[in-house]
Amino acid sequence: MRASYLQFSPSYLEPDRNRARVAEMIQGVETDLLVLPELFTSGYFFQSQDDLAEVAEPVPEGPTTDALRHWADDLNATVVAGLPEQEADLVYNSAAVASPAGEVAVYRKVHLFYQENDLFATGDLGFPVLEVEADGTSYRLGVMVCFDWYFPEAARTLAVKGADVIAHPSNLVLPHCPDSMPVRARENHVFTITANRTGREQREDEILQFIGQSEICDPDGNILQRAGAEDKGVGTVEVDPAEARDRHINQYNDVLADRRPDMYTLA
Amino acid sequence: MRASYLQFSPSYLEPDRNRARVAEMIQGVETDLLVLPELFTSGYFFQSQDDLAEVAEPVPEGPTTDALRHWADDLNATVVAGLPEQEADLVYNSAAVASPAGEVAVYRKVHLFYQENDLFATGDLGFPVLEVEADGTSYRLGVMVCFDWYFPEAARTLAVKGADVIAHPSNLVLPHCPDSMPVRARENHVFTITANRTGREQREDEILQFIGQSEICDPDGNILQRAGAEDKGVGTVEVDPAEARDRHINQYNDVLADRRPDMYTLA
Repeated sequence: MRASYLQFSPSYLEPDRNRARVAEMIQGVETDLLVLPELFTSGYFFQSQDDLAEVAEPVPEGPTTDALRHWADDLNATVVAGLPEQEADLVYNSAAVASPAGEVAVYRKVHLFYQENDLFATGDLGFPVLEVEADGTSYRLGVMVCFDWYFPEAARTLAVKGADVIAHPSNLVLPHCPDSMPVRARENHVFTITANRTGREQREDEILQFIGQSEICDPDGNILQRAGAEDKGVGTVEVDPAEARDRHINQYNDVLADRRPDMYTLA
Repeated sequence: MRASYLQFSPSYLEPDRNRARVAEMIQGVETDLLVLPELFTSGYFFQSQDDLAEVAEPVPEGPTTDALRHWADDLNATVVAGLPEQEADLVYNSAAVASPAGEVAVYRKVHLFYQENDLFATGDLGFPVLEVEADGTSYRLGVMVCFDWYFPEAARTLAVKGADVIAHPSNLVLPHCPDSMPVRARENHVFTITANRTGREQREDEILQFIGQSEICDPDGNILQRAGAEDKGVGTVEVDPAEARDRHINQYNDVLADRRPDMYTLA
């Protein structure tokens, strides 16, 4: 199957424009799995809770879920994308997953970074692993968002729950993630697809520079493709999720079966 | 305080010679914590269970613990070193910790690599964190051995149990660890000291090439010192364990306090 990230620079508080730009960028793309950045509809560095409220929307009833469903149908691909999700009086930093069959799942970011803690409610749904049909076979897709990468428990939880492929919508500003995702891929023996954004946003005198470098890793921790820091576009690689299914790294060691929970203190 | 690794190439099945070489290499070394490689007394690639039995010894009653105590006293430093530990009819791939005060602790490797599974019993004592006095202050020292690095639960368990510094005796042959230890250090906000060996060993037609590159990382994931692939000697850096004590990486995020065990599936 083919797996893709889309890297671009969302415009702050312009969801219509951002959806239109993505719609244009994916024309003619041939893929089975497309991952968009975190908060791709809204931009990231909210000036206020009011700004966030203006662009938050319900899932699956909102316009972005409609667009994702439409793109999933058009591309015959599963689409994973980050957006601010309104539920009652809370806003989550969420990722929605739309399948070609019209199904929608949602993940709410569990580990909030920095000032996100002032704006968003922390995720309450756990880490989802979905059975997905693609290219005549099926695989298991896990989802985490941006800063979740920092906590090994996030990708580990997805692997333990059976993920072969991890979709990772991101708005990275720290420099460490691109060189760390190969470790996450290797330690869990999974594919990872990090879709990051580019550009910069400012609030008062604080500037956030997003680092691009969207990346696809294989279960051995090889970087199959990495975008440049400023590139805009879709990157696609052919991957075989079956490679992730057997977690052996040699005839003796299986990275999940060798775990020794009785020896760990993780509570 | 000063933290050190010792990197050398142990001679196979020659514990007297290996202890003598270490005794020579540490003359004049000024440090508070010295980490030696995994199985530094014995070599690594055992031709048979009989070969292993020949060099396994009890801890703390054996000659290597005597030597470690002696070195700890001489250097006024805590010494961590790997050796094959005999207990009843089992042999563990262990690390002994000797303090200047004469105390000895032991860790038995939990995650056995490759053909170690044919030779050693798997560790049954969990991951130790010891309160250590050094240079007028005290810090908490955790221990893991070589392949334990591959499993994020090992270093995480040590951090959750309060480790400021992780001693990591190793006999690395895979290429990934030196570039992964900064991730372990960063995700747990701890210092790490990996002491690896050099040289090669052969069994039948299989050759293991040890990769050297002993390494000390700080809690931000910076590599403070890395040895070359073939270097022999002691590497020392000044570290402040207090830097690891506060796990905040910004005013909002604490890498341990932000964990969400209720959202994880790790059993």
